[in-house]
Amino acid sequence: MTELNPQYFDHQMMHRALMLARRGLMTTRPNPAVGCVITLGTEVVGEGWHHQAGEPHAEVHALRAAGQKVRGATAYVTLEPCSHIGRTPPCCDALIEAGVKRVVVAMQDPNPRVSGNGIQRLKAAGISVDVGVLQLAAESLNPGFISRMTRQRPWVTLKMATSLDAKTALSDGRSQWITSSDSRSDVQFFRAQADAILSGAATILADDPKLTVRVDQWPKSRPLPEPLKQPVRIIIDSQHRVNDEARVFDSPAPVWLVRTTPGKPSCHPHCHELIIAADPNGKVSLPALMVELANREINQLWTECGANLAGALIQQQLCDRLMIYSSGQLLGHHGRSVIDMNEPLNLASAPRFKIIDRRQVGPDQRLVAVPHTQD
Amino acid sequence: MTELNPQYFDHQMMHRALMLARRGLMTTRPNPAVGCVITLGTEVVGEGWHHQAGEPHAEVHALRAAGQKVRGATAYVTLEPCSHIGRTPPCCDALIEAGVKRVVVAMQDPNPRVSGNGIQRLKAAGISVDVGVLQLAAESLNPGFISRMTRQRPWVTLKMATSLDAKTALSDGRSQWITSSDSRSDVQFFRAQADAILSGAATILADDPKLTVRVDQWPKSRPLPEPLKQPVRIIIDSQHRVNDEARVFDSPAPVWLVRTTPGKPSCHPHCHELIIAADPNGKVSLPALMVELANREINQLWTECGANLAGALIQQQLCDRLMIYSSGQLLGHHGRSVIDMNEPLNLASAPRFKIIDRRQVGPDQRLVAVPHTQD
Repeated sequence: MTELNPQYFDHQMMHRALMLARRGLMTTRPNPAVGCVITLGTEVVGEGWHHQAGEPHAEVHALRAAGQKVRGATAYVTLEPCSHIGRTPPCCDALIEAGVKRVVVAMQDPNPRVSGNGIQRLKAAGISVDVGVLQLAAESLNPGFISRMTRQRPWVTLKMATSLDAKTALSDGRSQWITSSDSRSDVQFFRAQADAILSGAATILADDPKLTVRVDQWPKSRPLPEPLKQPVRIIIDSQHRVNDEARVFDSPAPVWLVRTTPGKPSCHPHCHELIIAADPNGKVSLPALMVELANREINQLWTECGANLAGALIQQQLCDRLMIYSSGQLLGHHGRSVIDMNEPLNLASAPRFKIIDRRQVGPDQRLVAVPHTQD
Repeated sequence: MTELNPQYFDHQMMHRALMLARRGLMTTRPNPAVGCVITLGTEVVGEGWHHQAGEPHAEVHALRAAGQKVRGATAYVTLEPCSHIGRTPPCCDALIEAGVKRVVVAMQDPNPRVSGNGIQRLKAAGISVDVGVLQLAAESLNPGFISRMTRQRPWVTLKMATSLDAKTALSDGRSQWITSSDSRSDVQFFRAQADAILSGAATILADDPKLTVRVDQWPKSRPLPEPLKQPVRIIIDSQHRVNDEARVFDSPAPVWLVRTTPGKPSCHPHCHELIIAADPNGKVSLPALMVELANREINQLWTECGANLAGALIQQQLCDRLMIYSSGQLLGHHGRSVIDMNEPLNLASAPRFKIIDRRQVGPDQRLVAVPHTQD
């Protein structure tokens, strides 16, 4: 038997567990995606990942796969095993009962009320526990779940489609299409990862979009999620302008109309009203909306909206990621600007983002940027 | 002696000649950058490149370096050897007299009046001539020279510095600085490759720039050109608004004020007036200006100007390359748009560019785009 570098082996196995976890990225919500690998010596004896809320957790799948080979084994889990009874029994107890000797955890449970409890329980049972292996990679798997647990709000992506000079439409509003079908196809993949899609009444009235994951536009290079869960569609409609004919109601997935005062009941059973406090301008308070969405277990919020709502989200520091698809067209100064907001007092105080990814999508380019914190 | 693949050897030697030519990129103007390699069998016996107008051409340097080893040799030249007497005697004659057996040429002379003459003259002297080896690479070395010879106008780059939402300034014009010192440093390298920098009176009045290659901002990763030739500064000033105090006059390099009617004489001896026909709106006719600049041997024109002139260049299809430096700031819809122009009738008729390069420059990103011709 060859000599084993234990640290390298730990990384390899955790990497494998992270790859397993990724398989659940579009189906586990509102739960986080979690993967688990069980090894005995250098042999992988069990693997598992969480498929869907209500179904067994990753650890349970892996323990079942390991069968008899679990006594004295090591379990690699991408998230601290749960110690509380949720929709399923606690995974800590399952690991303890199975007789595993060691548990390696990538990251603690982000929920401050239970964080560390699972690890304590394992340790109390005499199990050796290591925490923090590939922690950053594990955190990047579930930004929405972490955001909801630690900040009581979803992780918000603002998607924009612009010309090369950052215009979203001609002055009369014509915008179909500035970016290419490749870009619109790329968007489906991100919509499918979101728990909900946020838009505004203005966009519903102007473009009448369905705001669903479009199977016919799903990128050919990626497998279709199984099952495909349509995100909730959330429409900010302070002025009660969205009516029952809007195409957003065509899909059976829920539509939440966000208003500051109740409107007349909708004829659609999947349409619900969210009454949110008004801000000083009489508009829906966006921070209050975010708290409510977190309460309703929305982890990732994908936003496709007009320049007004986009500007409000940015100014209120509610945008965690910008995703900008831009074409090669130039529309000139008459075109509509991508961000409507109060002008910054000076250049230094302007909201600032940092580009973390740029690539070609068909004929367009796609930029990903995150809020820039001064170094 | 090992077997030789003649085609591979030709490519290797021409590549070497192109590398030599590049050394002259910032100093040969208004001449093109040219390199030459002379081989005898598989031995490189001479190398040369053109340094400056008025000095010997690449072939002459290479022949001198080859000395006695030139009889029966092969010469690799990145541009067709000249057959006419310019500031120096024709290179064709020098190659013929030296007794070279074969000449490999990357591209013909782009000047339609002399194109092919050099090759004919070599062939008439019994020399074997091959044309077209690494032709595209050779063409990309001298886009300005080729443009002037084939289109009677310079090769025009439009440089822009914008926020992430493509604004160039706050609504009151404050713009210093949106992009970083890294980007401003990067710009020096491109200014130095230009024969002239074009701007407008509005920019001179608003920012009072020097529009020179700044040695103190020269990128550390690149050698300073030797000698450093400051580009001509060309200012469009139809309304005679630029006065003698402008900082653009601080450098001894020429300043050309472009007007439709003569103004009062400047106190600066390096200031010249270019009188250009007016367009129907009473402004300087840009196509007429381009012809005049070609007549004055301007190959590459680097443009740093306001949104108005930028829009005019784009609408009149006089922009061959866009170079956009953009920061991570968002300025919102009150900010100044990067392109002022008539609105396109519809999205399909908007000017369209194709991004051919994108990269990080310090904290900013730099896009390079060229006019998109429908596939």
